[in-house]
Amino acid sequence: MNALKKLGDRNSENKFVCVGLDTDINKIPEHLKYGSNPVLEFNKAIIEQTAEYAAAFKINFAFYEKDGTRGFETLEKTLSLIPDSILIIGDAKRGDIGNTSEMYADSIFNYFKCDASTIHPYMGEDSVQPFLNDENKLNFILALTSNPGANDFEKLRLENGLFLYQQVIKKVKEWNAKKNMGIVFGATKLDELKSSFNLFGALPVLLPGVGAQGGSFEDVLSEFKAHNRKDFVVNMSRSIIYKSKEKDFAEAARGEVILMNKKAAEIFA
Amino acid sequence: MNALKKLGDRNSENKFVCVGLDTDINKIPEHLKYGSNPVLEFNKAIIEQTAEYAAAFKINFAFYEKDGTRGFETLEKTLSLIPDSILIIGDAKRGDIGNTSEMYADSIFNYFKCDASTIHPYMGEDSVQPFLNDENKLNFILALTSNPGANDFEKLRLENGLFLYQQVIKKVKEWNAKKNMGIVFGATKLDELKSSFNLFGALPVLLPGVGAQGGSFEDVLSEFKAHNRKDFVVNMSRSIIYKSKEKDFAEAARGEVILMNKKAAEIFA
Repeated sequence: MNALKKLGDRNSENKFVCVGLDTDINKIPEHLKYGSNPVLEFNKAIIEQTAEYAAAFKINFAFYEKDGTRGFETLEKTLSLIPDSILIIGDAKRGDIGNTSEMYADSIFNYFKCDASTIHPYMGEDSVQPFLNDENKLNFILALTSNPGANDFEKLRLENGLFLYQQVIKKVKEWNAKKNMGIVFGATKLDELKSSFNLFGALPVLLPGVGAQGGSFEDVLSEFKAHNRKDFVVNMSRSIIYKSKEKDFAEAARGEVILMNKKAAEIFA
Repeated sequence: MNALKKLGDRNSENKFVCVGLDTDINKIPEHLKYGSNPVLEFNKAIIEQTAEYAAAFKINFAFYEKDGTRGFETLEKTLSLIPDSILIIGDAKRGDIGNTSEMYADSIFNYFKCDASTIHPYMGEDSVQPFLNDENKLNFILALTSNPGANDFEKLRLENGLFLYQQVIKKVKEWNAKKNMGIVFGATKLDELKSSFNLFGALPVLLPGVGAQGGSFEDVLSEFKAHNRKDFVVNMSRSIIYKSKEKDFAEAARGEVILMNKKAAEIFA
């Protein structure tokens, strides 16, 4: 199914939470740690409990790559457990010269069968282009990220008066011939979200940084509501998947997503 | 062994070629294609024939990731075949928020046991910092890349008068407390190499783009010679590993590296 359609179906039901599967074996409940693949078991339970309520899943490749080949196997098995009706964002933040980006796109879309990717813009158009071939996928380009380091380069002002992240957004709109691009914008950067919102055009937005990083779910939603837009997802990882460290962790995660959905329904009422 | 020491040992012998293991099953000799792991067999032969003559190996993660779990296994096995005396650059071009970059660094350095990494600067200091913990590793930050897209952002001029890639180099020098950083600078960008050389300070340089992408080995070496510097490597992938498509492919690759070493010896004579 088309990635934007998957997202739109959920968004229309006021579902905006992207559940981030940043699963760290050191943070999962004790009782799971003695099975044959604790991370997979944890993910399976989280997926089963939240898939109906979330707007998307985002899987952070780093948390699997750190275990090398075995980690990739867990990543692959985790992805196979996610229902086809919900958007899967392969959060790998890749980007390289054309012939190499082609391989990364092949990995994320064809091998791991993700619906969406996250991409570093630094190397420019030919590093992004190979991800754009399939109009049914969705590619979130890093614009303004949620971390403190966003100040080092992303927020530098260019000779043309724009901040670098604004120039990235401008280019993304130019490159979006197949309507399969979006942007990453940190939920921790509320002032910039407000001041740059009019630059977004019709680009869907992935907003990380709510929860452990300090961004506010309500503030982000209110801003989108003010612009009459619903095509976005707010990623929440640690604050959902580690809501409880006990046997009820997956139910607690579901409860947290449902709570966010209630808040969303109120804001968009 | 310390990564800079490995590189320095080779550089002192006028060895500057980094053999890029961008191995593509569609481009390897026909006779290898029917074995149980053609890519691994190909890499094994290339490594055996060139390890004595090269300055480093660079392994492009994308070419393995595209085959998912099995590809990662091939990557892991390939890396285990490289002698400890030669620098291994894990060319994965990662970069994410701190807790995630930590996982990527763990993957590249601890799991895959590479000596060096390549990193996207876009997300700033806290996205790079986790790679810098070990003073025995080496981290090449993307400055000006070899591809056409380098013009889109890297070559934009900032309000402070510097190009973005120059600002990146400036920041890398500030962040280099453990002397374990370097930069990536495209060999295709000779004019900028000349005009920005004085900004490099003592940073080691990884130069991709010679061969298939059009950069000149001799021009790059002459520029470093002019600045009396030997701490760099010129990556060559396709022009070395696919020099011959016949049974003598590995010997042909060795011959090509030896030829480059002769040119280097002449330039640095």
